[in-house]
Amino acid sequence: MSSPDGRTSSEETREAIMEATFRALSKHGYADLRMRDIGEEFEMTRPVIHYHYNSKHELISSFLEYVIAQYKDDDTIDAEDHWDHLGIRIDQCMFGPDIDGFDHWERMTVYHELFSQAQHNETHRELFNEHYEGMVVGLADVLQAGIDDGTFAEVDAMEFSQLLTDVIHSARARRISLGQNDAPEQARTAIDRFVLPRLVPNVSVEIPTTE
Amino acid sequence: MSSPDGRTSSEETREAIMEATFRALSKHGYADLRMRDIGEEFEMTRPVIHYHYNSKHELISSFLEYVIAQYKDDDTIDAEDHWDHLGIRIDQCMFGPDIDGFDHWERMTVYHELFSQAQHNETHRELFNEHYEGMVVGLADVLQAGIDDGTFAEVDAMEFSQLLTDVIHSARARRISLGQNDAPEQARTAIDRFVLPRLVPNVSVEIPTTE
Repeated sequence: MSSPDGRTSSEETREAIMEATFRALSKHGYADLRMRDIGEEFEMTRPVIHYHYNSKHELISSFLEYVIAQYKDDDTIDAEDHWDHLGIRIDQCMFGPDIDGFDHWERMTVYHELFSQAQHNETHRELFNEHYEGMVVGLADVLQAGIDDGTFAEVDAMEFSQLLTDVIHSARARRISLGQNDAPEQARTAIDRFVLPRLVPNVSVEIPTTE
Repeated sequence: MSSPDGRTSSEETREAIMEATFRALSKHGYADLRMRDIGEEFEMTRPVIHYHYNSKHELISSFLEYVIAQYKDDDTIDAEDHWDHLGIRIDQCMFGPDIDGFDHWERMTVYHELFSQAQHNETHRELFNEHYEGMVVGLADVLQAGIDDGTFAEVDAMEFSQLLTDVIHSARARRISLGQNDAPEQARTAIDRFVLPRLVPNVSVEIPTTE
């Protein structure tokens, strides 16, 4: 926590406040959270929090930005081809980044709780919209690269990516809210079996219409 | 509100309490809801609520059962064939039953908020799991009937139905939490374009593997 001269830097303080907020949110949930609960998880004196954040809302908004930043696109993916690349990206969105000591599901529990409350908070709503847009665009870029060189069929990359993102979101939500722990693996298999085949090029399929 | 003899029946009282709870939840959200808020939306005297329900938690659990019951399977669907039947069922899950004066999105707003809080409440979690199971089985039955007579390809009906349910859930959540009002229509189109083609029989598609 301390820099070489023995003083705690502003960046370290911010990180400590964020992690205290994370522990307090995990313990109490968003609905019941009080500034006091965050103070109790914090290793420095409580006024430090109030010095940096004027209100619980400001602190939680800042925390949401902090969590979202941990899920920024990973540009270091080393994939064999577009199919492989797409699979890795879907896995990352579903199961989280593969970083030692990083608990994806604990983070996601807080994330999903704040998501569902975003209807009551315009700042949170904007942050989530931005994050979702980023996730959809990130997957769409991988799709578009494969469409462009003929690996994937000609689909609307943004529409297809949004569909994948929807399946991922729900599977995570079922695990978190309903305790269906195998939901992410199950949904991942369903994507492979029922959604990705649509990307194989030169397959013509007609759904009969009754009109 | 009154029966012919001028007295209010127990069933009517229950319904009035449920609708008062619905209005209070819509106005205040679950996190901030107090028994007092429900009382203020209730047309009878407040002790009537306390006579029927011992606590806010008991009342909210009962309310959740009430909302879920409004989304029970519609057995009266008059479909031309399995494709038509499936489409109608998906529409009902996404856009709600077509009943005059029934506001699906107002109900869903409360439903999704309670869903996200179900991790903190074992009774709610059980109710949601039961409701989800019912929704998945309802769609799977339609799928299985079409698989059995060769209209649909041989897929695992429960897995496929779960995938559809996941897309529907997320699209509703995006509309409610993120204000993406066209999310349900958009997801409905994506289901038609990218998921349902998988049900067309006798189409063989191989996804290349890099292993």
